[in-house]
Amino acid sequence: MTQQTAFATGIDVGGTTVKAGAVTGEGRILGQAVLPSRADGGPDAVLGQIVAAVREIDDRMGAAAGGPVGVGMPGMVSAEGLVRHPPNIRGWGDVDVTGYLRRTTGRHVVTENDANCAALAESKFGAGKRFEDFIFVIWGTGIGGGIIIGRKIFRGAGGGAGEIGHVSIDMNGPLCNCGNRGCVESYIGQRYLSERTKRVLADGPPDGHAATESAILRLVDGDPDRLDPAVISKAAEGGDPTAVRILTEAGRYLGVALSAVVNTIDVPVAIVGGGISAAPDFVLRAAADEMRSRVLQPHRQEIVVERALLGNNAGVIGAASLVL
Amino acid sequence: MTQQTAFATGIDVGGTTVKAGAVTGEGRILGQAVLPSRADGGPDAVLGQIVAAVREIDDRMGAAAGGPVGVGMPGMVSAEGLVRHPPNIRGWGDVDVTGYLRRTTGRHVVTENDANCAALAESKFGAGKRFEDFIFVIWGTGIGGGIIIGRKIFRGAGGGAGEIGHVSIDMNGPLCNCGNRGCVESYIGQRYLSERTKRVLADGPPDGHAATESAILRLVDGDPDRLDPAVISKAAEGGDPTAVRILTEAGRYLGVALSAVVNTIDVPVAIVGGGISAAPDFVLRAAADEMRSRVLQPHRQEIVVERALLGNNAGVIGAASLVL
Repeated sequence: MTQQTAFATGIDVGGTTVKAGAVTGEGRILGQAVLPSRADGGPDAVLGQIVAAVREIDDRMGAAAGGPVGVGMPGMVSAEGLVRHPPNIRGWGDVDVTGYLRRTTGRHVVTENDANCAALAESKFGAGKRFEDFIFVIWGTGIGGGIIIGRKIFRGAGGGAGEIGHVSIDMNGPLCNCGNRGCVESYIGQRYLSERTKRVLADGPPDGHAATESAILRLVDGDPDRLDPAVISKAAEGGDPTAVRILTEAGRYLGVALSAVVNTIDVPVAIVGGGISAAPDFVLRAAADEMRSRVLQPHRQEIVVERALLGNNAGVIGAASLVL
Repeated sequence: MTQQTAFATGIDVGGTTVKAGAVTGEGRILGQAVLPSRADGGPDAVLGQIVAAVREIDDRMGAAAGGPVGVGMPGMVSAEGLVRHPPNIRGWGDVDVTGYLRRTTGRHVVTENDANCAALAESKFGAGKRFEDFIFVIWGTGIGGGIIIGRKIFRGAGGGAGEIGHVSIDMNGPLCNCGNRGCVESYIGQRYLSERTKRVLADGPPDGHAATESAILRLVDGDPDRLDPAVISKAAEGGDPTAVRILTEAGRYLGVALSAVVNTIDVPVAIVGGGISAAPDFVLRAAADEMRSRVLQPHRQEIVVERALLGNNAGVIGAASLVL
């Protein structure tokens, strides 16, 4: 299809924005558009914005427009393109996104979970190019993921595979939004990480390093409510012991969850993207070390943890990759 | 291949015995043989016993002999049939079982991990027939497993997929033989289950039910060293509260591990075999209930936990199924 199509349109639907791009077979973005997703307006509003985004790319690309469309969305996406239960979109039950867009635009349309799209993008054009199989992790507000097997998205029975953020690392651990206990997301998702840092700064760390001297607090002018993982990363880069300890621990927690995944699916390579990609190398090293100490013996030599390469563009590029 | 072959030879290699069977395309065993595996003699001795088992089936089947051979073995088995690190076989590094058997017997040979073989047998002829995809659990001395996707063995990158016994359910839990902490095997493997029961009987249960009156102790004539999961199951069937509580808890622990697997690979069906298959229904119900309370919302309606159907024959039938 790459031969007949100069580019494909990739659409990345989030809770706030619909990003669109014209993407070449080499993963290059020729033109982009960003629209509000209107998630508060429910499915109809969001579908309308997706169509508007497709049209906007058409306008920009002029005569070359009209090719296939790939859509990445939060939620579980069936093989037929039915999108189930996306978080952050109001009033959305099961919506036939692929069917609607085909009818409305007359184009070839494929829809897939957004984390799976980003995983595919890394596989085709990013850090995953070197690997047949890998676990993709998006470490941001939550912990999302996708699994690539044989350079293809591994979807499981219903398209929901790869939710590694909801691997429990302690059955009696903190209650997660999902209803389970001890999900790795409930230890290292951005909100939890920030809250934990606030607690450590308030209580003072066990090693006696005076929390009031922490670089983290200086970076937010003494206001703990302003801290986020980017601030913690920055403080860690500067050598702040509290920040280093919290991020090392977070890396280890990720490693615990990934060990369970490796033992289950025998895929010893993890590629980590999302907001935390800005964090210092030692965070991913902590994850890899933890994995090596926990996975079954034959996997230990094989563990690789790498940073994702495509950043925020992975969603759009991956969505387009569905039809490239 | 079923058309040209009246039967295939299935070989199930364990630490103690090599079981062999002539298996039809309908999963029926026409003739069987059991030899000692001579695991203490190292790879050469075991390979010799496998060849002897093939010959014994040939002898029994007479003119019909000479067909393909499937071999199930503990350890990780590469796509080429290299068997790595089987537990319980002395001095075994990486051994090219498939190559050796092809050269020695001149037959078509396929080798696969034994739990994967049993999973395949259940898929073709047992409790898995109804399901495209399922997680297979062998609950015995350890907790083994295999994953069936699209009616085929899911092998992962190196053939090691499905080791769900080594999914940790508590990162700070008890040390497992594998080196990890909190593996579900270290909570519910037979040895651990027996030890835990002994402890409960010695300490007395927290609900005040007098442990000395436990039916478990009566079944072993008061000697706790004689107890095993079969005894605990029998006591539970008779309504003994200590036995019921321990097995319910064990079922729940299995459910915790399976929840992580379901969220990772989106396969909501588990089929459970091994020694524990003799346990009362409430054990698997406890596992299913725990899963429903822990998996991501879209999976909750889909959870199924069933008992395996093929018992001890699953290994031989599954090995033959590799070439049927």
